[in-house]
Amino acid sequence: MATTLDFQFKLLGTDGPARRGRISTPKGTIETPAFMPVGTAGTVKGLYPEQVRDLGAEIVLGNTYHLMLRPGAERVAALGGLHKMMDWDGPILTDSGGFQVMSLAKLAKLDEDGVSFRSHIDGSAHRLTPEHSIEIQTLLGADIVMQLDECTRLPADRGVLEKAMELSLRWAVRSKTAFGKANGRALFGIVQGGDDKNLRTRSAAELVDIGFEGYAIGGLAVGEPQAEMFEAIEHTAPQLPKTHPRYLMGVGKPDDLLGAVARGIDMFDCVHPTRAGRHGHAYTRFGVINLKNARHRDDPRPLDEESPNPNATRWSRAYLHHLVKCGEMLGAMVLSQINLAYYQELMAGMRAAIENGTFARFADQTRVGWRKGDLPVYGEE
Amino acid sequence: MATTLDFQFKLLGTDGPARRGRISTPKGTIETPAFMPVGTAGTVKGLYPEQVRDLGAEIVLGNTYHLMLRPGAERVAALGGLHKMMDWDGPILTDSGGFQVMSLAKLAKLDEDGVSFRSHIDGSAHRLTPEHSIEIQTLLGADIVMQLDECTRLPADRGVLEKAMELSLRWAVRSKTAFGKANGRALFGIVQGGDDKNLRTRSAAELVDIGFEGYAIGGLAVGEPQAEMFEAIEHTAPQLPKTHPRYLMGVGKPDDLLGAVARGIDMFDCVHPTRAGRHGHAYTRFGVINLKNARHRDDPRPLDEESPNPNATRWSRAYLHHLVKCGEMLGAMVLSQINLAYYQELMAGMRAAIENGTFARFADQTRVGWRKGDLPVYGEE
Repeated sequence: MATTLDFQFKLLGTDGPARRGRISTPKGTIETPAFMPVGTAGTVKGLYPEQVRDLGAEIVLGNTYHLMLRPGAERVAALGGLHKMMDWDGPILTDSGGFQVMSLAKLAKLDEDGVSFRSHIDGSAHRLTPEHSIEIQTLLGADIVMQLDECTRLPADRGVLEKAMELSLRWAVRSKTAFGKANGRALFGIVQGGDDKNLRTRSAAELVDIGFEGYAIGGLAVGEPQAEMFEAIEHTAPQLPKTHPRYLMGVGKPDDLLGAVARGIDMFDCVHPTRAGRHGHAYTRFGVINLKNARHRDDPRPLDEESPNPNATRWSRAYLHHLVKCGEMLGAMVLSQINLAYYQELMAGMRAAIENGTFARFADQTRVGWRKGDLPVYGEE
Repeated sequence: MATTLDFQFKLLGTDGPARRGRISTPKGTIETPAFMPVGTAGTVKGLYPEQVRDLGAEIVLGNTYHLMLRPGAERVAALGGLHKMMDWDGPILTDSGGFQVMSLAKLAKLDEDGVSFRSHIDGSAHRLTPEHSIEIQTLLGADIVMQLDECTRLPADRGVLEKAMELSLRWAVRSKTAFGKANGRALFGIVQGGDDKNLRTRSAAELVDIGFEGYAIGGLAVGEPQAEMFEAIEHTAPQLPKTHPRYLMGVGKPDDLLGAVARGIDMFDCVHPTRAGRHGHAYTRFGVINLKNARHRDDPRPLDEESPNPNATRWSRAYLHHLVKCGEMLGAMVLSQINLAYYQELMAGMRAAIENGTFARFADQTRVGWRKGDLPVYGEE
């Protein structure tokens, strides 16, 4: 694990718009394109930290909104920071808290200076400003810090999108000032503008003028069809500097990752793999498999006998079905691990394909597998 | 791991009534006194099988009642048996199902031949006889099989206790006939008789006449004070052959284990350590610690810095408190592991103490630690 004193991004190669890169941080290296498992409240739900590391993840994400409410940023700092608290020694990215304030908190009220809201847990009053978000993320000990922005659900009127994009730009400036010297950490700006290309262009250009260690595309995967999301990425990514990592926030399902990497994205995060695991769904090369389904009840076959992940081969589908039906913790634990492992396997496959100049073929073959779907019902092969 | 083709018990030494022994089975060796983690529905709740093995457990227990309802004994058999289904290659003991029929099932109706009941899950009608219980346990692939018995809650009238004890003896005979040739497996008889010493004496004597590979003491830890339980053990254990393992069913808390080993018990099982873990309680050399308690909120100290269990030292109490308060799966996972590890550590300590002839001192010192209680509140040391 090569480490550096600075945050650095190196573009190692391309295959069309798809990029193969490497982020170096004092806490470790992140091979890109990378998927970051989400550790909302300081734990990737259902996995031990060493399991997260063993499945190939090199960075995890923490949610500022959740952590500022519980256990509280000052408390995390007093415990030595988020890395020490959760026993994760690799890099950590934290979001700004803004997205969850708007989606989870009660009575969120936005003004020029910041956003006031009440906790969804106990109703307590809180306020987040660009400066305070940086301060909280610094207390948490984040290696990659996100600016506070205003994220708009789609569809939205152009006027609404423009106002949010412009406010986000003003908050980007304030975030950069508050962030100060990087000292091995990175601050990422966030491109807003919804599905309006002119707004995206302006947002990207002005963020690049301000200058960040990386650039996120925000305000996608918020209700729009996948085709629209891809169009926005296709428009926005080329306007970001080749020399810096590009992060598509909150995305997504495996097919979203394939399509976004094809359009030049380097980093992803999403709660979907662990949430799907808790609901009995497994991601595999056959696509998504619903283990609640009675077709698995008597199936002695493993989830995927060709998987390099031992958890996908050691138990029968019938046993996984049984665990899920009984609500046994092990079912949620194993399926969360299986899903994150599949995501990491997919990212590793994409990285290798970009290196070999075979990304398009890899993407096609992967989609063919998903479309073919699951094995025939046991006994009906 | 020395294995044999037969089920064997060897008494290696004693320290007063406390016994140090070894059970050999074709699936592996069990050093006694032993605590068996309970894998109710084919999984020790919250732990991977390798974690169960790594914490020192050499045998696990499966519940016939739960498994016959879900996924069904025939289905388990079709999947290759319980060992293969759950990926546990050590010995497995299954209970007869009788205890849970009386405590969990609906409309249980007992007659001379067996017991009829309805599933607590879906209301479906089922029937369990001594022969059918053996058949189910054989389908599950149990290494140690328990006879069906009638277990009476305490306090109970002598007449009720006597009737249940005598029925259990008739069922013991039928169980032995149904079990047939052992082939490396073992059938255990169960002493009943409640808190009535004469009944316990008769039950033990007649069971020994029938002849089993091991003898359980049933009908304890069913509502009576600990002192009464100890009295019943003290009376019953000496009436069982020294040459055979003695199993106290469904017991207990750490202090119960100390007292029962002191009175000649070799084997235990209980859901308590994993259930307590899911409720935020940790068993330690300081006694039981309630991690929900706000006193841990800012405590950077590990649960027990001297524990050999990495999970008891790698995280702060504040983090464990946070996980429990947030209902995070990792909290339940880790505390279940910590509790089972402490139980195994306690059993290993008892085994070593018996070998060294220092059991009484070990028991005293352990109790002194529990009585001293937890560390002073952080900051008030």
